[in-house]
Amino acid sequence: MDSLQNYTNAVAQQARLAATTLASTSGAARRDWLLVVARELRRQQSEIVVANERDLEAGQKDGLSSAMLDRLKLTEDRVQGLAAAVEQVAALPDPVGEVIEGSRRPNGLQIAKIRVPLGVVFFIYESRPGVTVDAASLCIRSGNAVILRGGKEALHSNLALQRILSQTLENSGLPVHSVQLVSTTDREAVGQFLRMGHLIDVTIPRGGRSLIERVTREATMPVIKHFDGICHVYLDAMADEQMAVDIVINSKCQRPGVCNAAETLLIHRAAAERLLPRMAQELQSRGVELRGCPVTRQFVEGAVPVTEQDYRTEHMALIMSVRVVDSIDEAIGHIRTYGSAHTDAIVTNDLSAASRFESEVDSAAVMVNASTRFNDGGELGLGAEIGISTDRFHARGPCGLREMTSYKYVVRGSGQIR
Amino acid sequence: MDSLQNYTNAVAQQARLAATTLASTSGAARRDWLLVVARELRRQQSEIVVANERDLEAGQKDGLSSAMLDRLKLTEDRVQGLAAAVEQVAALPDPVGEVIEGSRRPNGLQIAKIRVPLGVVFFIYESRPGVTVDAASLCIRSGNAVILRGGKEALHSNLALQRILSQTLENSGLPVHSVQLVSTTDREAVGQFLRMGHLIDVTIPRGGRSLIERVTREATMPVIKHFDGICHVYLDAMADEQMAVDIVINSKCQRPGVCNAAETLLIHRAAAERLLPRMAQELQSRGVELRGCPVTRQFVEGAVPVTEQDYRTEHMALIMSVRVVDSIDEAIGHIRTYGSAHTDAIVTNDLSAASRFESEVDSAAVMVNASTRFNDGGELGLGAEIGISTDRFHARGPCGLREMTSYKYVVRGSGQIR
Repeated sequence: MDSLQNYTNAVAQQARLAATTLASTSGAARRDWLLVVARELRRQQSEIVVANERDLEAGQKDGLSSAMLDRLKLTEDRVQGLAAAVEQVAALPDPVGEVIEGSRRPNGLQIAKIRVPLGVVFFIYESRPGVTVDAASLCIRSGNAVILRGGKEALHSNLALQRILSQTLENSGLPVHSVQLVSTTDREAVGQFLRMGHLIDVTIPRGGRSLIERVTREATMPVIKHFDGICHVYLDAMADEQMAVDIVINSKCQRPGVCNAAETLLIHRAAAERLLPRMAQELQSRGVELRGCPVTRQFVEGAVPVTEQDYRTEHMALIMSVRVVDSIDEAIGHIRTYGSAHTDAIVTNDLSAASRFESEVDSAAVMVNASTRFNDGGELGLGAEIGISTDRFHARGPCGLREMTSYKYVVRGSGQIR
Repeated sequence: MDSLQNYTNAVAQQARLAATTLASTSGAARRDWLLVVARELRRQQSEIVVANERDLEAGQKDGLSSAMLDRLKLTEDRVQGLAAAVEQVAALPDPVGEVIEGSRRPNGLQIAKIRVPLGVVFFIYESRPGVTVDAASLCIRSGNAVILRGGKEALHSNLALQRILSQTLENSGLPVHSVQLVSTTDREAVGQFLRMGHLIDVTIPRGGRSLIERVTREATMPVIKHFDGICHVYLDAMADEQMAVDIVINSKCQRPGVCNAAETLLIHRAAAERLLPRMAQELQSRGVELRGCPVTRQFVEGAVPVTEQDYRTEHMALIMSVRVVDSIDEAIGHIRTYGSAHTDAIVTNDLSAASRFESEVDSAAVMVNASTRFNDGGELGLGAEIGISTDRFHARGPCGLREMTSYKYVVRGSGQIR
């Protein structure tokens, strides 16, 4: 066995042992650790910024784009923000030990379904070093050990953050291997971890499509995937004009580069003349490029023809496809054909249209008269999230602390047999 | 594309379409279909038995063991039993549409987390043809389309059952492709379905270890696995003698060939002299071969030496490993080292021992003063089960109707934006 394999084996086995110990720690101990981490982040912010500057210099030399460099950058303000986020996770209720449900059976057995941690999480992410702290805090709060694999461009920043995490784990009496940062940037290390389905319980890749596809292909354990968000807003015949404008503008423009931003606007034919001209003007005045179907282009000056490929694309930019549909059925059909089952919204005052949309659009989040931007752990009341799952299995939509858990049945009897 | 690939593609795409339609059907329509199936099974029982006889004859020619032939056999009584099981599934509450939880956010948004079907289930099983009906009824009750791949030894029986399922689907106005039986016995067909992660939402293999391993290796969608049950009963220092005997005998002998039967007996040293001699005699009088650690063999005549391999083996037979331990810690350590996290029981009257066992043994079901045999969907109150998951992800332990579902968030607003 080569030395890389020795290293990854040791990391995974240490994580496994840490997870076993961690599962029996009190919620208070795990919460208090988070508060210490927040304090140390604030206390050591200048050291963190200095380490980060080494990454920024290297990144400039390597020709990273200014957007990449901005994602990589940790200012003192950003470190303060990280510390505050850790405190928010500390304030969330402990998911571990929650009695999810229980019953007493006719034979007197008492059944309790009790929440337990998943175990060991392998978390793969890219340039933003703050994710190191976010992921560690969410994993430990939910009783899981975590193996962190950050991007090589953030290595010095991540090492500085990891030093704080390890020191505080040790001082708090929690297993020091509960959080481990993979210190090699060898791509093969990822492949080795992905083959350790017997030691690692779930892999969470956060990054571009090619990373997620590689992980899905190679992983021998479950993966929580976060694929495209091709999100729609459908304006029904009965949509209120101002509400329609507010929701479309918010869904498209508030943060166009995120997964729950809208990509396509669908409008019922009966509302096209009433809504489209003003809507187009509001969007265009905010710099949105409109790509329209033939009917749309009758009402909208400056819209270029939309292609089928546009309907299938997550632009993540100020580009919006617009299509006029003959009926709610056609809208739902469009969403089924081109959408990614992430987040889709209807604007309507027609109760039966709202009901049909709710039941027939099978997306992780279906919005009625609300912005697509609300598909978010914080906004839905889950607290902080580790990602938004595009899977149907285990966790769908935002993944908060509970989604990082499994359960077990505890059965208490007094000698019952079958 | 060859004709097999054309066939499997068509089956999967038909299943996908059926699943979409099925998700919007009423629970009453799906329940009523089950009642019709039960009626038709009873009405056509002689045709089913005739078809089954063809399989039995072929099986005899092919030299199947008498145990295999018995598993394959459908008598009129067994068909009656199948019909009754379908009626039991019909009587279970519809999981689809259940509001799992809900809240109103400070901004007035109403959040509902609503249970929806998983979608398309690929179910692979071996000789017992009754599973065809069990699996179809559980899948349709939970709103899922199912692709059934039975064993080739049961082909005629399965075709006769499938005819009833298809006819009744059609007569009930449900999508006829909601239940499809794979008509080819080509092994490559399984491989093709396993590569269709874009059309099939979950694969459930029910069979031996090699089938499950193949499916896990090849599947591009989630798999609900059902691996070994290496289950333990631990008799604590404070175990009541009669309760200990009852629970050990029931756990080992009531049905030794199933996954929740006990394989290993652990006994606290302080209770060994008090409990072991009678326990051994009770077990041996029921034909159980005992394999003991050195201390055990001081108390038990006729016990052969246990090996480490025994501790790791699911015998599925009247063989039991017996080990005397110095403490509850050693018992828990043994279970962690050799167990399969399936079902483990403690017998004790010591509250702190019970609490420690509950929290430190991380198995799908932890029993306190109850037989391991209670880890079963019916016994835990889930109704019928489609299998017992040995995974931690999505579903752990018995999988009933709810475990065959996902969820979506429905967010109702009045124009909210971020």
